[in-house]
Amino acid sequence: MRPNLPDLDAYGVFGVGTLQEAQRLRHFVDEERPQHAVVVGAGYVGLEMAEALLRCGLQVTLVGRSPEVMRTLDPEIGTLVTQAVRNLGIDTRLSEEMTALETIALDSSAGTGSASGFTRRVKAVVTTVDTIPADIVVLGLGTRPNSDLAREAGLELGQRGSVKVDRTQRTSVEGIWAAGDCAETFNLVSEAPDWVPLATVANKAGRTAGQNIAGANITFPGCLGTAITKIGEVEVGRTGLQVANIEKLGLDYAAIQIDAMTRSHYCPDKAPITIRLLGEKSSGRLLGGQIVGGPGAGKRIDTVATALHAHMTVEDMLDLDLAYAPPFAPVWEPMLIAVRILAGKL
Amino acid sequence: MRPNLPDLDAYGVFGVGTLQEAQRLRHFVDEERPQHAVVVGAGYVGLEMAEALLRCGLQVTLVGRSPEVMRTLDPEIGTLVTQAVRNLGIDTRLSEEMTALETIALDSSAGTGSASGFTRRVKAVVTTVDTIPADIVVLGLGTRPNSDLAREAGLELGQRGSVKVDRTQRTSVEGIWAAGDCAETFNLVSEAPDWVPLATVANKAGRTAGQNIAGANITFPGCLGTAITKIGEVEVGRTGLQVANIEKLGLDYAAIQIDAMTRSHYCPDKAPITIRLLGEKSSGRLLGGQIVGGPGAGKRIDTVATALHAHMTVEDMLDLDLAYAPPFAPVWEPMLIAVRILAGKL
Repeated sequence: MRPNLPDLDAYGVFGVGTLQEAQRLRHFVDEERPQHAVVVGAGYVGLEMAEALLRCGLQVTLVGRSPEVMRTLDPEIGTLVTQAVRNLGIDTRLSEEMTALETIALDSSAGTGSASGFTRRVKAVVTTVDTIPADIVVLGLGTRPNSDLAREAGLELGQRGSVKVDRTQRTSVEGIWAAGDCAETFNLVSEAPDWVPLATVANKAGRTAGQNIAGANITFPGCLGTAITKIGEVEVGRTGLQVANIEKLGLDYAAIQIDAMTRSHYCPDKAPITIRLLGEKSSGRLLGGQIVGGPGAGKRIDTVATALHAHMTVEDMLDLDLAYAPPFAPVWEPMLIAVRILAGKL
Repeated sequence: MRPNLPDLDAYGVFGVGTLQEAQRLRHFVDEERPQHAVVVGAGYVGLEMAEALLRCGLQVTLVGRSPEVMRTLDPEIGTLVTQAVRNLGIDTRLSEEMTALETIALDSSAGTGSASGFTRRVKAVVTTVDTIPADIVVLGLGTRPNSDLAREAGLELGQRGSVKVDRTQRTSVEGIWAAGDCAETFNLVSEAPDWVPLATVANKAGRTAGQNIAGANITFPGCLGTAITKIGEVEVGRTGLQVANIEKLGLDYAAIQIDAMTRSHYCPDKAPITIRLLGEKSSGRLLGGQIVGGPGAGKRIDTVATALHAHMTVEDMLDLDLAYAPPFAPVWEPMLIAVRILAGKL
């Protein structure tokens, strides 16, 4: 997504929607040696780009519209990720929105090489709060389904304008299948259509569509919105519903959050881990989970994802026989501590 | 467990059944500066001791009775762990059994300090194949339930002589509860009593017994035998039934094993991972899993454990929404590849 602002086509402004854009960005960094980067958007892509530019030696400012980075997390977990971003040395401006770009005219001698064809070059990002000098601006403002062709062809559209499909990836028109970021999917926890533009969903849906086109009759039941990323050494995982989704569905829920360690307390490489779990009061079922922590924390979200797939109640999870040895977990695995505390609230 | 051999009480021979024994062992290593260690027994404890002694600078020989280390794994996975042990530089002798110890008389001047009270000192381990020089011998030959008190008190005993308990940890005698390595537990996959002397089971059972003694009425449903360890950087996880258990139960099963990478192929710190999964042909249910691989491999066993708890069929697992980002997994998580291949065999 690109905001509707002038000068977005100035030299030094990049999106990361295609491999070609990423290559141009990389080339610009190598060739122009920019010193100040502003990354606009504090989701997965914005965070990854901010860290990558930092590692290229730039001073990086991250601008996010929400009070915390990563809106796919509840703010109580998001704030820990915000802290991790700041700890890396990224100047993180939140609740702040880009309103304009400042540019300067490119002198004619610069009109060759990479700058060829550009008449202006970016100088600063103007936000609702400040003017931030920028030699390079990267936009990570989210994405939307590329469903123009489908709409023009008269296919029914669904969530966020994605192509409506059934569990076999068939669209509303006979003989046309869709899969990937352009297509709708199904959320296994909300039991409602959803749009989840992630590679995991795209690959499973694509496999399903491909097999069905070739004559099979298989289904892709849907997803949980499981996602994982890292900021420096801090790992972040999430799956299922978060509070914003749950409140929209009107479910009566409990949320808990615990702080523990990834390994036994006497292990030298132990690191903090925070686990947040959400459960439904009426049914006792698990609704979702979020994790932030050091090495080994993030992939623990797979346990929550597997439990969600199996429609486990929180009580079903009380005695999960999760793996313990001191270099891998404390004897009471943090996930079990979280489950036990959530069970007490349902 | 100690074999019935003379000279097991010689100076330089250690078990690791108590903290005190471990402290004496550590003291011996620091004080006597032994150069050649022989570790007898190639289970979790034997492997951990062999690696610890290696890290103390000793030359280490490991002697194991079975063709591969770690009999809690199927041999097809055990052989990868054997290789990992050898790669560390541990001289690993398998299908070989200790038959005697060679000792020398301690001269009277040595009869003070740590050696005080000992008349002989270990010199070598004699096996069915060889005589291996040893300044220190560590026994990791397994354990058995410490249930003498219970037996003498007339309590019913169960698996391997452990104290028989119900799901509330009550023994056969009113007013007596048992928990920990002395007590029996229940295997959630075989649905039969089992004896699993691991800290995870002991802690859950102890909590259950404690609460019930204090007037609650809670149950500990049982375990899967989930376990994890590491040898150098190689992580090993296992859960549920292995082939030896399955064949004893007479189940019609399929086993598959896949080699993949822990991370996306373009990630610098990717490492090999091998996943073995076992499923029942008649019901399609998952029976167990084993994993060997580099950093990040071992804790993936928790996904298998959670699926076993939920009695998932292998087909239920086909589209598990497990977390993907390049530093954490390939887009087709190795676990999903394994599940898909196993599904094709059931």
